[in-house]
Amino acid sequence: MNNQTTGQDVNEYPYLDKGLEGIVAFSSKKSFIDGAKGELIYAGYNIELLAEKATFEEVCFLLWNERLPNKDELTELHEKLVAERDLPETVYNYISSTDKKSEPMAVLRTATSMLADSDPDAEVNTPEANLRKAIRLTAKMPTIIAAYDRSRKGLEIVKPASKGSTAFNFLYMINNEEPGPKAERVMDLLLVTHAEHGMNASTFSARAIGSTLSDMHSSITGAIGSLKGPLHGGANTAVMNMLKGLDKDTDIRAFIKGKLERKEKVMGFGHRVYKTFDPRAKLIRVMAKDLAKEVEMEYLYEWSETILTVMKEEKNIDPNVDFFSATVYYSMGIMPDMYTCIFAMARISGWTAHYIEQMENNRLVRPRQLYLGEKNLPWVKVEDR
Amino acid sequence: MNNQTTGQDVNEYPYLDKGLEGIVAFSSKKSFIDGAKGELIYAGYNIELLAEKATFEEVCFLLWNERLPNKDELTELHEKLVAERDLPETVYNYISSTDKKSEPMAVLRTATSMLADSDPDAEVNTPEANLRKAIRLTAKMPTIIAAYDRSRKGLEIVKPASKGSTAFNFLYMINNEEPGPKAERVMDLLLVTHAEHGMNASTFSARAIGSTLSDMHSSITGAIGSLKGPLHGGANTAVMNMLKGLDKDTDIRAFIKGKLERKEKVMGFGHRVYKTFDPRAKLIRVMAKDLAKEVEMEYLYEWSETILTVMKEEKNIDPNVDFFSATVYYSMGIMPDMYTCIFAMARISGWTAHYIEQMENNRLVRPRQLYLGEKNLPWVKVEDR
Repeated sequence: MNNQTTGQDVNEYPYLDKGLEGIVAFSSKKSFIDGAKGELIYAGYNIELLAEKATFEEVCFLLWNERLPNKDELTELHEKLVAERDLPETVYNYISSTDKKSEPMAVLRTATSMLADSDPDAEVNTPEANLRKAIRLTAKMPTIIAAYDRSRKGLEIVKPASKGSTAFNFLYMINNEEPGPKAERVMDLLLVTHAEHGMNASTFSARAIGSTLSDMHSSITGAIGSLKGPLHGGANTAVMNMLKGLDKDTDIRAFIKGKLERKEKVMGFGHRVYKTFDPRAKLIRVMAKDLAKEVEMEYLYEWSETILTVMKEEKNIDPNVDFFSATVYYSMGIMPDMYTCIFAMARISGWTAHYIEQMENNRLVRPRQLYLGEKNLPWVKVEDR
Repeated sequence: MNNQTTGQDVNEYPYLDKGLEGIVAFSSKKSFIDGAKGELIYAGYNIELLAEKATFEEVCFLLWNERLPNKDELTELHEKLVAERDLPETVYNYISSTDKKSEPMAVLRTATSMLADSDPDAEVNTPEANLRKAIRLTAKMPTIIAAYDRSRKGLEIVKPASKGSTAFNFLYMINNEEPGPKAERVMDLLLVTHAEHGMNASTFSARAIGSTLSDMHSSITGAIGSLKGPLHGGANTAVMNMLKGLDKDTDIRAFIKGKLERKEKVMGFGHRVYKTFDPRAKLIRVMAKDLAKEVEMEYLYEWSETILTVMKEEKNIDPNVDFFSATVYYSMGIMPDMYTCIFAMARISGWTAHYIEQMENNRLVRPRQLYLGEKNLPWVKVEDR
């Protein structure tokens, strides 16, 4: 064992960038976050402005093209999205035949990957082909999500509507009933506020995978896998799982204080980048209040406000986007384990925009690691180990 | 437009780490590369030693446990791997029913993702469950690859052997014929030399996805997508595609010089980390020579040596692992578009080892981006755009 040396000279690598915190990995025109000010911009436009004025389809165009569409362009995009909503038979077969206990995000990951098999542009890496694939993926992901949700409930799969917005069509497919304008508007606003968010973990994975010049389906499948994690998109499911078992009469202040005393994590609070109120949480908070009233679940909204107060008092920490979106989805009758899928259905616009941008100016993502193991160990025969 | 400001203060982010070159993203006991010396170590043991002494199964155990197995442990791992080789019916159905023109790596990505549906540990994130999943994925990936290769050729799928090494079983399944000891040894050596390689793009993607605490199947599906890219695992396919159309009498020196004059990329040369001869290329070079002779394809080996000389003379650049592995696979009768799958079948050991290590000491990977777009643009009605 005498020619063995331990570890690598740490001086060679003075600093381990754990979690890549503060590291600037890419440049982008897709979005900007000022975490101190609580500011979020998509390709030039503040999120508050977009939430008030823009539809999800306009935001998709904006993220892909870095400008808003004119009337003809918006109509054309809408028509393409409607035309691309249906799934290939193989994907419906997979969804119908799969174990009904699978996580919806796992099924979305597999089915999205499978879409490559029937996409004529699957292996074509040109700006035009990538935009066509972005439109197809944006159109088809809601269909996958709704089809699996109905299939696992033993309900017949509803084929996509040949009209209406992405928000309208999604609610129609999950409920087999056309949504009212208010529900459609709420869903659209949720899609707009979740469409893009800087170099978050899933977008980062999408770009890192794309940086090998791999295809868009590979990049997006990886991003779905990343979003699935409870430290990322899975957080909104976790928020609702924290609340849904509770009785209406629960003393929510005592419940949260108990959690904090036991050092348990309260889901939906804090963010790596925002050091103040997440602007998306502000927008969704208003929506949550209205909706809770409409569906006679005011207690849920009141709980949220109480939790927010306790967390501010005790930990001086603000809610993130997942905190209010969870109760909004719940108020709309959507099952908690579907929330992350809806997040994905919105974020597909940002992921594909970043993939396209990565292709315009690519550099392979290939960092280093700090080796902490041994070196030059001698071989010992299996009999002597 | 007067409240518009352009871009972000670059001074806030003095340095864009494009491609994360030189950034130390993780610490690890799994492997060490000294790019200047051409040294590669897996968990303490030099690659030359492992190539000479270890089987792929021993390397799997080493990467997962950071020590070599004793005899009982090795037997137990072998038995578990054999027992886990078969695929669920749904995965065979997918493979049989898919478009025979799909990229093998795309099918591997989808089928691997689909394995989660039938894995009892899919959503269990404990060290024990993760090790079980690592074994299952290592056992099943060769079956997926061989099944798709036979299926697309119109041949009957061969069920996995209930004996033999991973290398033996893979060659048996693709050829429906037990391989001789020499072919098995060559395949085993290819698996050993491709098992692990520091913070390469796919391993990095696997860890970044895992850092959201997402499940192992999500992490590995993303890694497959990353490896698929021509700047990463796709390179060995590209090497063979460069050579396979050429006539035996081609003046290979003139062919390569012509490529260099036209500024075309010669595949299989250079590496972000190695600044000298890739130690894996050295090991596979010897194998390539022997094998070319045996199958009477000496011209292929001679071409390789000529290309190597020209590249050294003209560009002072050394070959990487993909350069010689491509001709070795070709000599074994394996189709070029399968090479990246075989790479994945080996690297699954390293990917899963890194996922397990990431779970032991996790930090969400969430870097930043440099915003180059505009800010605070005013809204313009769609009619006026």
